Amino acid sequence: MIIVGELINCTRKAIAPAVEARDASFIQDLALKQVDAGAHYLDVNSGLPGQDVEAMEWLVDTVQVVTPLPLCLDSAGAEAMRAGLERYRGEHPSILNSITLEAKSLDEKLPLVGGFKCLVIALLMSDDGVPGSVEERVDRASQLIETLAGAGLDASSIFVDPCVLPVSANTRNGLDAINSFGAIKARHPEVKTICGLSNVSYGLPERRLLNQVYMLLAMAKGLDAVIVNPLDRRLMANMVAAKTLLGQDEWCTNYISAHREGKLDLEGT
Amino acid sequence: MIIVGELINCTRKAIAPAVEARDASFIQDLALKQVDAGAHYLDVNSGLPGQDVEAMEWLVDTVQVVTPLPLCLDSAGAEAMRAGLERYRGEHPSILNSITLEAKSLDEKLPLVGGFKCLVIALLMSDDGVPGSVEERVDRASQLIETLAGAGLDASSIFVDPCVLPVSANTRNGLDAINSFGAIKARHPEVKTICGLSNVSYGLPERRLLNQVYMLLAMAKGLDAVIVNPLDRRLMANMVAAKTLLGQDEWCTNYISAHREGKLDLEGT
Repeated sequence: MIIVGELINCTRKAIAPAVEARDASFIQDLALKQVDAGAHYLDVNSGLPGQDVEAMEWLVDTVQVVTPLPLCLDSAGAEAMRAGLERYRGEHPSILNSITLEAKSLDEKLPLVGGFKCLVIALLMSDDGVPGSVEERVDRASQLIETLAGAGLDASSIFVDPCVLPVSANTRNGLDAINSFGAIKARHPEVKTICGLSNVSYGLPERRLLNQVYMLLAMAKGLDAVIVNPLDRRLMANMVAAKTLLGQDEWCTNYISAHREGKLDLEGT
Repeated sequence: MIIVGELINCTRKAIAPAVEARDASFIQDLALKQVDAGAHYLDVNSGLPGQDVEAMEWLVDTVQVVTPLPLCLDSAGAEAMRAGLERYRGEHPSILNSITLEAKSLDEKLPLVGGFKCLVIALLMSDDGVPGSVEERVDRASQLIETLAGAGLDASSIFVDPCVLPVSANTRNGLDAINSFGAIKARHPEVKTICGLSNVSYGLPERRLLNQVYMLLAMAKGLDAVIVNPLDRRLMANMVAAKTLLGQDEWCTNYISAHREGKLDLEGT
């Protein structure tokens, strides 16, 4: 399971003021905490109104001082993504979060794929809006994977995000998204699947419970990567347990190590 | 999701002395707590050495005084099962837990299926031992379902238990069991699937975490019924959340009710 740490995100209340104030130690501390907790990529969302490009440059510069971890460059704007790609000096390619089937997204962001070594989150939004059924998700995934291939990106560099929608809006939204993992990978075995967890619980109480449970259901259905808060101890312990139970932990060595490190002791979480 | 409450079990330390002492109020209290927590069946395991039949008679008599819930008559012995079936007066058929492919089990227990209205847990043990692969589980399930059909039992009255084995013994044990749910139901769409949770975590630390996570992975893979401790608040909250996320809770009404009843507040669990 590939873990993208989601905490450095300017749309979060605690983050925007720190980025506006260029509080490097605050951001670096948050980066290191996520690294320590097991993140494989760090999302950096630069969505400050009017400062998207400058914020991305500063975030990439600031984070890569303290960790060599690859980043997940998260912006609606192609210019901020380009700025992030230009500033990033790490060895492993970063991820663009995200490219959709929307004409504007393709026009502005596809050139980045040809120009830089990177991975891409292929989010199944289009100018027709969000996807409905599993079949529609498979069709859109095929279309977006082909388009990205045309721009020079291997399928193995693509994380397909099926676009998770709230179950409060439609009873089948949670299930359709996770059922699409298997359907998309049956058609395109080389791609990986990814999703965030918080959309599914929008509008409902006890969202942390729903998000934690949804990750496990998604893992059973073939999720490869997840955008999460790696400081959620229960969520991370659940992930360790799920990998062990899903046959991804030979001799349970990872589980037993996590136990010895105190990571599975959830008293009070 | 069909919930079989597992707490009235003579192999548990707290229960055997209470049954030996014929402490009816202790057992009845445990029955009512499980009913209140949402159990649909109550398992009654009568495994007291040398007293299996008498213990089953007393347990069935004692429990059905306080609840009309159907029982899950849990014994290695056919005579105890017969005694339980004879004593049970409820409206809905009870479940025999369990019949296996072992010659002794078939010889002794198949006649019960013809003689009483009941449901059966078809556990995929045989005289060759526990099953290995998913394919072997499907083959054994087919064989046992056909044998039970020959004794007069409809497939819709069968809960197939794929025989969950510890991941500490073999890395694939957890995954093979839950992958067999879909494979068995593809061949026999009318049967239901069931399992217990505690075997999978045998030999590992933090077993409650593993058991809780395994139930969710199993639900995503098509588990219909589960033998659990319904007084485990987190496990039951996880189940409510999972049903909502898997599209089994129209308009999230069940989830919102559970929230209003305080069942999703897991502080300190």
